[in-house]
Amino acid sequence: MSLNQETVRQWSLPELADGCARAGVHGVGLWRAPVQAYGVRAAARLVRDAGLRVTSLCRGGFFTALDPGERAAALDDNRAALDEAAALGTDTLVLVSGGLPAGSRDLPGARERVADALAELAPYAAARGVRLALEPLHPMYAADRCVVSTLAQALDLAERFPADRVGVVVDTYHLWWDDTAGPQIDRAGGAAAGARSRIAAFQLADWVTPLPEGVLLGRGQLGDGSVDLRWYRERVEAAGYRGPIEVEIFNPALWARDGADVLAEVVARFREHVG
Amino acid sequence: MSLNQETVRQWSLPELADGCARAGVHGVGLWRAPVQAYGVRAAARLVRDAGLRVTSLCRGGFFTALDPGERAAALDDNRAALDEAAALGTDTLVLVSGGLPAGSRDLPGARERVADALAELAPYAAARGVRLALEPLHPMYAADRCVVSTLAQALDLAERFPADRVGVVVDTYHLWWDDTAGPQIDRAGGAAAGARSRIAAFQLADWVTPLPEGVLLGRGQLGDGSVDLRWYRERVEAAGYRGPIEVEIFNPALWARDGADVLAEVVARFREHVG
Repeated sequence: MSLNQETVRQWSLPELADGCARAGVHGVGLWRAPVQAYGVRAAARLVRDAGLRVTSLCRGGFFTALDPGERAAALDDNRAALDEAAALGTDTLVLVSGGLPAGSRDLPGARERVADALAELAPYAAARGVRLALEPLHPMYAADRCVVSTLAQALDLAERFPADRVGVVVDTYHLWWDDTAGPQIDRAGGAAAGARSRIAAFQLADWVTPLPEGVLLGRGQLGDGSVDLRWYRERVEAAGYRGPIEVEIFNPALWARDGADVLAEVVARFREHVG
Repeated sequence: MSLNQETVRQWSLPELADGCARAGVHGVGLWRAPVQAYGVRAAARLVRDAGLRVTSLCRGGFFTALDPGERAAALDDNRAALDEAAALGTDTLVLVSGGLPAGSRDLPGARERVADALAELAPYAAARGVRLALEPLHPMYAADRCVVSTLAQALDLAERFPADRVGVVVDTYHLWWDDTAGPQIDRAGGAAAGARSRIAAFQLADWVTPLPEGVLLGRGQLGDGSVDLRWYRERVEAAGYRGPIEVEIFNPALWARDGADVLAEVVARFREHVG
């Protein structure tokens, strides 16, 4: 199990490093903003000294701008994110593709711009030993956050590139409703085709309702919701995945509590519902 | 164009009948609760006298209960809905399948219970000349409202039954994000297979963000959002659909306005973005 930093957003980076070490959690998923605020090198040293592995960096992406200046700025920012990932020692940069530009209704066009951006970034990523990890987000984010809504769509894009350069993220919160997620996880695993796995990261959160306004911060603690988390773990493992399992829950009710209590609860829930 | 009653919820049934007649709109989609409150026979007479056709009745469904008593009650309620549809002279009962029972994580099982309910209701519906119209709802409703999330899933269920007994609803609000919606509309149309069309209703609303808490009442006026409405109209027509196009927008901002103003705006937006 790896702990994504946003699950315990109330913790500073030193608190996160210390708290994970105390809880016996050896992996963390980090976010760019707090890492930048702390200093990338200092953050890398901090987690290394705590014996932690950085399992992913969140996040690059936002590739769908039509304006050339915005597009160039997004690509520059993604190169910076790849540099940061390499400095932190992680091989996985999670990508949230971006939504529709203002006034646009062209989803297929936006998805093609994601492919164009992957093509531009893939060599830069490969030179740093970092894989671009395309994350399909729940369809409720298709307009304003991520035009890649299903694992099938993510794989359609990723498979245009070598598997060691572009992978996908399997996140239960985003995929749980989809009856094609199972076969698509098999496809991502690649075993049947004798291909290298595309599964770059596996993330967990539960689905709880009612959704809050804006639908960003309504993820559920493991076991509180509708997702058959163990089924997903078994399916990604059957597809050959042996990497970290990251718990990533955005939930203000968790952020209002003591971080160590939250982490202890996450570990217990992970044992009960996933392990 | 047909006006779904919920778009102008501020109107009573007589106001709806009168307002549609004045606006030259000849079809209405009705909801059970206001029809029951007014009286089913009286409502049927009212809309008939106003020269209106009832294009659909919303809604039956909620088939996913595990408890035998709840399940039997749901089936009884659906038989009553079919009687009401027949009395209103519509051949289409829209079905919202229902979410997961409390504590359940078994989406495939819930979807099978939808199929079981269709099997029980189909003969009763056929005897009344009413088609069961299974509506896939956006995946954000999968847990608490409708376990049927895509047109492909709806067709997988509908195709177990004769096409004149069980059809599907194509609603742009629910399907717009799905890159398989186009091919699935073709499949629903049935032309390539020489089959009768499964498209029982075609409904429009636009997708706007941010979504409100609970995500039920955030539908956008035509043209205000991300959906390529004309693309959908052309696609369902290319698939052979020649039936009414129902505008169904749940939006408190529209309900706060004068109903005639809202309907005039809907008609103008329909011409601009759909027709």
